[in-house]
Amino acid sequence: MRYTQTLISTLKEDPAEAEAISHKLMLRAGLIRKLSSGFYSYLPLGLRALQKAENIVRDEMNKAGAVEVLLPSIHPLELWQKTGRFELLGEDMYRLKDRSEKDFVLGPTHEEVITSLVADEIKSYKSLPINLYQIQTKFRDEPRPRFGIIRSREFIMKDAYSFDKDEQGLEKSYKKMYDAYCSIFKRCGLPYLAVEADPGFMGGNVSCEFMVLSESGEDIVAHCPKCGYAASMDKAEVARTANRELSLDFARDKQVEQKLPPLEEVDTPGVSTIEKVSEFLKVSPKNLIKTLIYIADDKPVAALVRGDHDLNETKLKRALGAANIAMADEKAIQKITGGPLGFSGPVGLKGVTIIADYSVENVANAVVGANKKDKHLLNVNINRDFKVDKSVDIRNITASDPCPKCAAPIKLDRAVELGHVFKLGTRYTKALKAEYLDEDGKQKPMIMGCYGIGINRILASAIETNSDKDGITWPKSISPYEVAILPLNIENDECKKAAEDIYETLTKKGFDVILDDRPERAGIKFKDADLIGFPIQLIIGKNFLKERKAEIQVRKTKEKLEIKENEIEIHLKKLLDNL
Amino acid sequence: MRYTQTLISTLKEDPAEAEAISHKLMLRAGLIRKLSSGFYSYLPLGLRALQKAENIVRDEMNKAGAVEVLLPSIHPLELWQKTGRFELLGEDMYRLKDRSEKDFVLGPTHEEVITSLVADEIKSYKSLPINLYQIQTKFRDEPRPRFGIIRSREFIMKDAYSFDKDEQGLEKSYKKMYDAYCSIFKRCGLPYLAVEADPGFMGGNVSCEFMVLSESGEDIVAHCPKCGYAASMDKAEVARTANRELSLDFARDKQVEQKLPPLEEVDTPGVSTIEKVSEFLKVSPKNLIKTLIYIADDKPVAALVRGDHDLNETKLKRALGAANIAMADEKAIQKITGGPLGFSGPVGLKGVTIIADYSVENVANAVVGANKKDKHLLNVNINRDFKVDKSVDIRNITASDPCPKCAAPIKLDRAVELGHVFKLGTRYTKALKAEYLDEDGKQKPMIMGCYGIGINRILASAIETNSDKDGITWPKSISPYEVAILPLNIENDECKKAAEDIYETLTKKGFDVILDDRPERAGIKFKDADLIGFPIQLIIGKNFLKERKAEIQVRKTKEKLEIKENEIEIHLKKLLDNL
Repeated sequence: MRYTQTLISTLKEDPAEAEAISHKLMLRAGLIRKLSSGFYSYLPLGLRALQKAENIVRDEMNKAGAVEVLLPSIHPLELWQKTGRFELLGEDMYRLKDRSEKDFVLGPTHEEVITSLVADEIKSYKSLPINLYQIQTKFRDEPRPRFGIIRSREFIMKDAYSFDKDEQGLEKSYKKMYDAYCSIFKRCGLPYLAVEADPGFMGGNVSCEFMVLSESGEDIVAHCPKCGYAASMDKAEVARTANRELSLDFARDKQVEQKLPPLEEVDTPGVSTIEKVSEFLKVSPKNLIKTLIYIADDKPVAALVRGDHDLNETKLKRALGAANIAMADEKAIQKITGGPLGFSGPVGLKGVTIIADYSVENVANAVVGANKKDKHLLNVNINRDFKVDKSVDIRNITASDPCPKCAAPIKLDRAVELGHVFKLGTRYTKALKAEYLDEDGKQKPMIMGCYGIGINRILASAIETNSDKDGITWPKSISPYEVAILPLNIENDECKKAAEDIYETLTKKGFDVILDDRPERAGIKFKDADLIGFPIQLIIGKNFLKERKAEIQVRKTKEKLEIKENEIEIHLKKLLDNL
Repeated sequence: MRYTQTLISTLKEDPAEAEAISHKLMLRAGLIRKLSSGFYSYLPLGLRALQKAENIVRDEMNKAGAVEVLLPSIHPLELWQKTGRFELLGEDMYRLKDRSEKDFVLGPTHEEVITSLVADEIKSYKSLPINLYQIQTKFRDEPRPRFGIIRSREFIMKDAYSFDKDEQGLEKSYKKMYDAYCSIFKRCGLPYLAVEADPGFMGGNVSCEFMVLSESGEDIVAHCPKCGYAASMDKAEVARTANRELSLDFARDKQVEQKLPPLEEVDTPGVSTIEKVSEFLKVSPKNLIKTLIYIADDKPVAALVRGDHDLNETKLKRALGAANIAMADEKAIQKITGGPLGFSGPVGLKGVTIIADYSVENVANAVVGANKKDKHLLNVNINRDFKVDKSVDIRNITASDPCPKCAAPIKLDRAVELGHVFKLGTRYTKALKAEYLDEDGKQKPMIMGCYGIGINRILASAIETNSDKDGITWPKSISPYEVAILPLNIENDECKKAAEDIYETLTKKGFDVILDDRPERAGIKFKDADLIGFPIQLIIGKNFLKERKAEIQVRKTKEKLEIKENEIEIHLKKLLDNL
């Protein structure tokens, strides 16, 4: 490709709209442009990188025995009602009507469509297992599109769906996909983590997220540099014992209990947040117990966590075994606790399930809301002043907690989710009657898995983890081009001809080359090549005309080599093989 | 690929829902499945054919110097308001709102998005010309989805957009795309016609449709087998002289005019259509003049055509130079003509532009509506009884008309539109301010062309023109696989092993092979292979085990060859090269 034939539009300054490194660099290097919030156009260089990532994904899927299909983007709404996910996804789905007022949605994912297709087409155990995938545009009405293509409203996803006869089959299919994902991210040059995760709205029991650590990530991952454990905040366990060890401020045992001071009510006018209460009463947040009122499947629940901890709603939902949970509104809180929002506490609560995080067991002489306006209680003690129905792990792990696996200090870091593999079981196949006739003559629901990769995020994550002050330092496998030829003085006919000849030769030999044939100054060419980040620059400068020598520069290491004209191919090949 | 690994689902019977040959065969061969009206899933075989067509298109686009991009499917509605096309496309566009109630549309085409992108990115003559294309899903809310993927609501289009400095540049860009289209359809094995067409809602002056003759086409093409002329009904001219020669029933000259019988009003109670009037008055439709009342840019127009002809609205619009035309409703007709719908005529009309097709000049003693309920006029003669403001070509050409180019008999046939190339000029670049600074220091609007291909329709047209009673007879270039290996007795270990070995060897050598490794009877394997239509069947039967001889059958010609095991490759290669 020639610069002058394609559209390469680089920007000198960081665009004000961009926060994430990848977003800035993708705009500056002319890979993408915003059409409107959450919608991006891919310019030629961006699309080329995207297609390379796509091809790696396709190749590994095919190698793993998955077979490609293509499903519509517009789905009848009724199909989503059959699985109950229309309500579940709510505003995240784009809805539309056709000219006859029939309801449709834009597919945010395709479990419903693929399962109903498989239900129609596969009838016998002889046709199982099968794994069908597609690489296709998805649509999600993100409330807050951010970080360029990391969280956008229209994106390209590889989504694969496996159908098996039984759990052992699913286990195999899942493993194949898990391994394929590892190969994909490795080939794309990404330092990924395989993170235990909660399946969320997808359903099923087991899921694993593939993530890349990055400041621009919207998720936080708990990971252990020592043993390699990694889990999402929804999944990273904090054991009961871990809480005990870490909350020794007030050791609680029989002896201590007998000497506990009596319960006391104090005025806390307008003081309703943990921070304010802590400041007002001069008590550490560790000695406060937060009482959060939820409605879980229509029943009131009080969830208790220590003042310095964050409740994790997914853990809470799991611990309650509830289908739906939501925070109670002001009115409901008043009704349930008798007091206003901001002053809830566990003492005296009736008709409410009280569920407490393990850490709450270890707080003695706590401060809690009094379920009265502008009042708190001091010297509150578990068992003496209130009882809990269930003591469990319902809080986010913190950087002070130990690794659940090896007890070494855990690390919390932001990460971008690249892919997610799920064991779905019969969540969809039962709802949509995807059944097969088994060898024993019985109808059985198929056992399903699903496996997604955000192709666009491969690019963004690669840039998040591969850049320097001058621009992108692409992993070779997904760089828009591998080699950029930079003739420094294209106005000079000899220089131009030499560059053209080398370009033609390398192209013919199958090298992935772009020629900067613009009549621009050397400085501009270097700046753009560094910014866009082609792994290798082949510079045709003064020495070429004098001594028939070109210069090769490796973008990432800035390593330079001077080579003879007739050795360009050999050296390029060697360098590329080693990248 | 192995049959047992992929999803091949053939149907024994023609599905009731399908009319077109391609639709029937695509369903029967398991290439596509309907999700809902106008929306189709591509099963593995269908997608593979689609991707082959896609790759041919991509290859020819790249060769022609076009550069690939990818634009969003969801567009802000306001962008479509800037060019006025939101109103023009109306219900054909899917509309949607995001969670904040902002209006969007699903892109049915991308002139607006690409032009606004180019307006932002290209500022100087130095960056022109450029041709950007994408291969992407489009959405159109077709009122009547039909013929499977021929007229669907979600389809894959290659859309290219050229931007030039001037008309000569556009001429070159257009020619390159025209030539690329010829190469594409040739490579896909399609007997296409390049048809002069009206640009319609795309705007601009010149356009050409690439079509394949087929009973399932929704358009009619006028084409001349003698000189190769081809044009759409909107474009195929009927010259004034052609009308004269063909309408000799009533020769009109001075002599005749003097002997013309007087105008006469007759009762025609409830007789308001051409057929009924013709029957009631025992007059050939050729002697009737149809008077159609239109509103053209808010002004009334009476359009006259002979009773046996059809008015062509596009020709009428062009002849009037109107931006919008619409048939007048009953109320408007009453107001304009003084009479009810079904009884309009040109005699006595006031304040109405009268525009007549050339053929009307040659109708003497015509029958027309009397602009009164249940009345017609007899012996109506042009110039004596009414005057026309303009005599032009505003009717559809018929099979009785001559070729406008060589005067040989013209043919009218149904055809499927595969592609369309347009010279748009400044229709979009002016509206969206896509301007460049020219060498002379002046800001000028870019000159634009656009070029579309319906990728799905390549498949449908290929099947429409390549099938027999047994199924599809794919052109090699877009067949899901080129060679099907059919082991006739897979239960026999030796037969199975031989087939597997040949499959492995051929795959390794780069042949595009599928192995029917199902434990099915020979009859079923042959039937499926014929139905799906792989160009070559390699049969591993009894003779193979006895004499190490396989049989090759060419699907299209049913030509058979017996070959030795060690000559399979050579023969396959030769046969494939000749297909």
